[in-house]
Amino acid sequence: MDQKGILIVVSGFSGSGKGTLMKELLARHPDTYALSISATTRRPREGEADGREYFFVTKEEFEKMIAKGELIEYAKYVENYYGTPRGYVEQKLREGKDVILEIEIQGALNVKKMFPDTLLMFVTPPSAGELKKRLIGRGTETLDVIESRMDRACEEAEGMENYDYLIVNDSLDRCVGEMHAIIRSEHRRSSRNREFMQKIREDLASMKR
Amino acid sequence: MDQKGILIVVSGFSGSGKGTLMKELLARHPDTYALSISATTRRPREGEADGREYFFVTKEEFEKMIAKGELIEYAKYVENYYGTPRGYVEQKLREGKDVILEIEIQGALNVKKMFPDTLLMFVTPPSAGELKKRLIGRGTETLDVIESRMDRACEEAEGMENYDYLIVNDSLDRCVGEMHAIIRSEHRRSSRNREFMQKIREDLASMKR
Repeated sequence: MDQKGILIVVSGFSGSGKGTLMKELLARHPDTYALSISATTRRPREGEADGREYFFVTKEEFEKMIAKGELIEYAKYVENYYGTPRGYVEQKLREGKDVILEIEIQGALNVKKMFPDTLLMFVTPPSAGELKKRLIGRGTETLDVIESRMDRACEEAEGMENYDYLIVNDSLDRCVGEMHAIIRSEHRRSSRNREFMQKIREDLASMKR
Repeated sequence: MDQKGILIVVSGFSGSGKGTLMKELLARHPDTYALSISATTRRPREGEADGREYFFVTKEEFEKMIAKGELIEYAKYVENYYGTPRGYVEQKLREGKDVILEIEIQGALNVKKMFPDTLLMFVTPPSAGELKKRLIGRGTETLDVIESRMDRACEEAEGMENYDYLIVNDSLDRCVGEMHAIIRSEHRRSSRNREFMQKIREDLASMKR
């Protein structure tokens, strides 16, 4: 059956806890998953190491990567580039790892266009009420902050339908187990096992001869 | 999240052991699944009870069910009708049960046409070699028997691509666990949770007002 890795994009509402989920999933199954490392032109912060948190590159290097098609997707936020280097992802997939990308919706859709087999997962709080709470905070935020969070959440909500699965983050433990089960199940999709089906058909045909 | 039941069709190569799998899945999770009971015009065999193995009906009753659209799918084998009554399936789905239909590929595709959300699973031996063994038997079968089995397997293999998942039956225990995990995962598909997404969008919109 399917031995190749699956490319997985994880997005979600801000504050949905997807970062924590990813870390826990990786920690539980270090031989199964690889987390994609982004390239960025922003400077490393205290404690960040090149090739661990990010690949730190110059603007010139980044633009060369764009020109050469070495990035699966990229975006510019506040003067800094962020992108997903293709080489690392493809190498890990060949090794049979399921590779996880934690990116925003626009990037997710671009990845899906380039790799149609990409699995898209969206992390959400368990209810609209819970989402509200996280947006409004403890009542100490300014209206400006709340409004900008709300705008962002609305944008994020618009894109949910494009994702294959919704991951409801109510409990870290349950949620990590569920993500793992969904990804394991995806390996059994017939669309990911065409070679296996082809082999069976060929064998049946050769018996008839 | 998704509380409605999922309609599941299970097909597979003859001798793939799908019947045993289904029985074990039902035995382990009696509150989660319901096995659809077929209607048939053939006579009950020793030990079969009406409404348990089959709904036993007359040819006239069966043809009335066809005319009234009370069957999700039906077929005729050797002078006898077999079909899936719609009422029982829809009732169980409303109760939140995942309803399993064990039928052949042609019926499976008809069900999928009528209920596009149907989940199609195909049970296969672990390898073409294993399938060969099961077709050839212990070397005591006539060539006629082997050829008719082979023809049937070829037909079955042609349809595999139409199924959503391949279930490789190498060990009963592992396999039942895998089927259950796949079905649980399917409940998290965003296409099965449109109401949940709609609710979140409405709540975000109402906050903006």
